[in-house]
Amino acid sequence: MLDKILDAPLSEWLKDTNDKEHIVISSRIRLARNFKDILFTNRNDEESLKKVDAIGKGLLSTLRQADSKEFSNISLDKLSDVERAALVEKHLISPALAEKLLYRGLIVSADGSVAIMVNEEDHLRIQTMEAGLNLRKAYEHAIVIDDAIEAKHSYAFHETYGYLTACPTNVGTGMRASVMLHLPALAMTEKINRLIRSIIQLGYSVRGLYGEGSEALGHIFQVSNQRTLGASEDETIEQLQKIVEGIVAEEQKCRTALQQGDVEAFEDRLWRSYGVLKYARRISGQEALSLLSDAQLGMDMGILPTWKSDVFNELVATTRPNFLSKYAEKDTMTSSERDSYRAKIIRQKLD
Amino acid sequence: MLDKILDAPLSEWLKDTNDKEHIVISSRIRLARNFKDILFTNRNDEESLKKVDAIGKGLLSTLRQADSKEFSNISLDKLSDVERAALVEKHLISPALAEKLLYRGLIVSADGSVAIMVNEEDHLRIQTMEAGLNLRKAYEHAIVIDDAIEAKHSYAFHETYGYLTACPTNVGTGMRASVMLHLPALAMTEKINRLIRSIIQLGYSVRGLYGEGSEALGHIFQVSNQRTLGASEDETIEQLQKIVEGIVAEEQKCRTALQQGDVEAFEDRLWRSYGVLKYARRISGQEALSLLSDAQLGMDMGILPTWKSDVFNELVATTRPNFLSKYAEKDTMTSSERDSYRAKIIRQKLD
Repeated sequence: MLDKILDAPLSEWLKDTNDKEHIVISSRIRLARNFKDILFTNRNDEESLKKVDAIGKGLLSTLRQADSKEFSNISLDKLSDVERAALVEKHLISPALAEKLLYRGLIVSADGSVAIMVNEEDHLRIQTMEAGLNLRKAYEHAIVIDDAIEAKHSYAFHETYGYLTACPTNVGTGMRASVMLHLPALAMTEKINRLIRSIIQLGYSVRGLYGEGSEALGHIFQVSNQRTLGASEDETIEQLQKIVEGIVAEEQKCRTALQQGDVEAFEDRLWRSYGVLKYARRISGQEALSLLSDAQLGMDMGILPTWKSDVFNELVATTRPNFLSKYAEKDTMTSSERDSYRAKIIRQKLD
Repeated sequence: MLDKILDAPLSEWLKDTNDKEHIVISSRIRLARNFKDILFTNRNDEESLKKVDAIGKGLLSTLRQADSKEFSNISLDKLSDVERAALVEKHLISPALAEKLLYRGLIVSADGSVAIMVNEEDHLRIQTMEAGLNLRKAYEHAIVIDDAIEAKHSYAFHETYGYLTACPTNVGTGMRASVMLHLPALAMTEKINRLIRSIIQLGYSVRGLYGEGSEALGHIFQVSNQRTLGASEDETIEQLQKIVEGIVAEEQKCRTALQQGDVEAFEDRLWRSYGVLKYARRISGQEALSLLSDAQLGMDMGILPTWKSDVFNELVATTRPNFLSKYAEKDTMTSSERDSYRAKIIRQKLD
């Protein structure tokens, strides 16, 4: 199943978005959970790590029953560096989990909509994903998983503080709700920075495609809650939903504005990006994201001919360096080989 | 006929090159001639200017008889600024002739292969053009014109010094033979500068697309003789022919070398230029020449799909700013209107 997951450029769950403008790419819920009477992962106590690893491996049948999906368990120490890096690029594991190997695992559903990291910062990090703006649905899915696990194993829970976590910033709900957005018009008109500041003031964080510290490559941004204490899951999801709806409205306004200014200069930019994507023989990862962002915006706005199928999300994932190596079935690729293979994949999708 | 000449992007004579690699674009002969007993043009004597103007206007039937072509006479003071500038861009008149208007004229054949400037620096500047490397043919054509004129009017000629000219640098044969070359591979591999220095040392000059002081836009270079005294027309043409053959061989060597290095990086450059030409909505004049040069090189080398018809020379002319305005039938165009129209013309040729 790992091969299937790693080889598929686009996870099943990501395919059925109903957002015609492709502004909201996906919604994600992450629950941090720790088991009662087992030391936190960061204590690095081998016996505790083993216990959690064993619980994780024992969860498969429970999950299959609760969620009626195929699940499998991947031990990270059995994977190659490229495979682990590709899982990070697919957002199935965190960069942190890719580094520490022993007793670290990933439980993943066949459609990729559920990914549970085992022995990351917390014992479990339950993640559920939905295409488009579907936080509520993702949350309900996470609760199904969460309840099924809790029915078998006691979580570390405190009456006043809620779920206990390795890092105090997650105590309470242990929940991080996040939404991934494609905001090219806001970025082009340079209104994005003011918007980000106002979102941060509301207590939400805005990050790039690959989490903290990553730049907003391809004009893709992740917005998520910071607070896990003092607000219920429902309140958090409701507020984030509203914030995202506000961002989408701003992006739409900017797209309209772009069609009212020097339209031809704007269209020229989009068509040039399209021309390069269609004909270039080598494209770097960073350039690909920038060109793909332009192309998707142009298609959303009816300026460029659309992809044969909806492949923006697919290409954003496929063109990442490690995923690309996995996809090319080569363990080592030089930088120019990757650039060449990346350009080839993109050309095929535009042909 | 002026309209026909100005509106046609490509002069008839330029169409039939047999150079498959398009390295030699065209060959040109220019003869400087002055009439006996009339003051040089630079003396600015109105009576002399009038006399020469009248001789020029009287030459049409002589020329028709001698060269069996249609000829017409254009008084430059009757043209608009844009029309005069377009004639310069078509290499039919010099920038100098476009400035001084009264009594200045152009006698031109319908196919554009003969252009005689009247009252430029010299009384007459007889120019003949041929596609490809055909200096001898152009020279023989010039002599037909020259002999026909001399049969009716006496030239200022000195037994020892030869033809007398307004500027001593033209005394002797009064002939400038020049060849226009497209040398992208030499330019890309930066071997062009050493080559230019060695050509200059042989007593020949190398200039850009629009004569002295113009940069080598689109990697197009003009090579011509400097010396008009002490070498016969035949010797000059023979030596220039050999020099050009040498340059062509160097360009071919560089093209081969480009296919032996990092071929994909080179092909990537050409395909990107092709993609931009095919899809951009605005292209500046300078960018157009650079992209067109890449595209033509790629087509010559079998890397890019070829133009529907052989339009490199045509587009190099059409995309010049004034010619473009004339072509668009607009007397005033903003810079972005021109860039837009230029991109449109190029797209049509690639569609």
